[in-house]
Amino acid sequence: MEAEAMPMIERLGLKKDDPPVIAPPAPCISYSGTDWGMKIHLVCFGKCPGTGMDTVGTAPASLFSYLAIQAFSPDVVVSAGTAGGFKCKGASIGDVFVATNTVNHDRRIPIPGFAEYGVDKRVTMSAPKLTAALNFKSGVCSSGNSLDYTKEDMELMMEHEACVKEMEAAAISWSASLFCCPVLCLKSITDIVDGDRPAQDEFLENLHKAAAALQEAVPRTLEFFGGKTLGDLY
Amino acid sequence: MEAEAMPMIERLGLKKDDPPVIAPPAPCISYSGTDWGMKIHLVCFGKCPGTGMDTVGTAPASLFSYLAIQAFSPDVVVSAGTAGGFKCKGASIGDVFVATNTVNHDRRIPIPGFAEYGVDKRVTMSAPKLTAALNFKSGVCSSGNSLDYTKEDMELMMEHEACVKEMEAAAISWSASLFCCPVLCLKSITDIVDGDRPAQDEFLENLHKAAAALQEAVPRTLEFFGGKTLGDLY
Repeated sequence: MEAEAMPMIERLGLKKDDPPVIAPPAPCISYSGTDWGMKIHLVCFGKCPGTGMDTVGTAPASLFSYLAIQAFSPDVVVSAGTAGGFKCKGASIGDVFVATNTVNHDRRIPIPGFAEYGVDKRVTMSAPKLTAALNFKSGVCSSGNSLDYTKEDMELMMEHEACVKEMEAAAISWSASLFCCPVLCLKSITDIVDGDRPAQDEFLENLHKAAAALQEAVPRTLEFFGGKTLGDLY
Repeated sequence: MEAEAMPMIERLGLKKDDPPVIAPPAPCISYSGTDWGMKIHLVCFGKCPGTGMDTVGTAPASLFSYLAIQAFSPDVVVSAGTAGGFKCKGASIGDVFVATNTVNHDRRIPIPGFAEYGVDKRVTMSAPKLTAALNFKSGVCSSGNSLDYTKEDMELMMEHEACVKEMEAAAISWSASLFCCPVLCLKSITDIVDGDRPAQDEFLENLHKAAAALQEAVPRTLEFFGGKTLGDLY
């Protein structure tokens, strides 16, 4: 979301790519810069032209992450954003999690082979040295297309031991897998999934706090990446 | 799905595009030919490299339909496939429906503006002359990422008067909208959503019958398109 991205763009001193590197009609806007010896490209998925809203959810995420990877051929994709956290897994508002895996909790296809395709459990870059050095938490990140959850969503999240719940990581992880590109998912907690308040209330209330945590976490992560090989991070 | 596409490729006498027109790593396979005075390109979304399964659902659909439209710049996209039908809306197994609209039934985002973005109700090419001439039925097509449905999915489908339920049309419709490309959704019925049998049993039992209906419907639709302008179809 633009609200999550703008402060980070300023903080990292990135400049808008003009002309666009990701060609229209995709509404993505990319910002680029160099720091810690690395090229950094931040891709904001942009607004839905029909409704004017940020293009959240897995359908835009699979598309725009594919186009972004095609355009920039990165060594690593960082899926940075806000998420709900499970207090039963130790999550508190403002925490930053690194995903160990991504799963989908709203793709139930009870046909042999398709059930696994639906969940699409993938190993993501858990980067234990990074997690330890920067005091992040870690666990399974579960994606779905709704801000709330159904009984069926929760059953799948519990089965896969989800620690955080958001709306894009599994789709980004799947698209990146087509390019064999590693993905680090960095998620700051806006709301407690297994708490007693509706996600939308907590989300709007804590978006600023979680975005601030993310604005610390992303530059610190990039700084940690600087001068290291991929192997150094595992 | 490949099982839905292969008989149609043979029937239309299409040849596999070699080298691929949609570049890897997207697993899409396209087939092209000319008939009724038109260029015809059939794009099979292909298999998920990780699981080997057909890439069903909205996340691959938004991506691959975008790449296909980018590659072929079509005048019209036809989203042809099988679907569940609502008997309360007059659907029977083997019927062919043309969508009047597409909606999403599994994207609940109860935040002002995002609720509408989530449902993303879009007008599709209802083509009443085609529907009447070829004796198709018509109604709202609702997409979601599960073969079954939750109570919440059903509430949204009822609210939007869904006649058919499947897993891709709304995402294809959204991607095509970025290119301002009209979409005709042609869906043949494999199973009854508001019946008393699990979708997966009826789906597997009737896939062949519904695919056969689609293999009739697609060439007849293309023949109807032949020699007409887009305006002639409305």
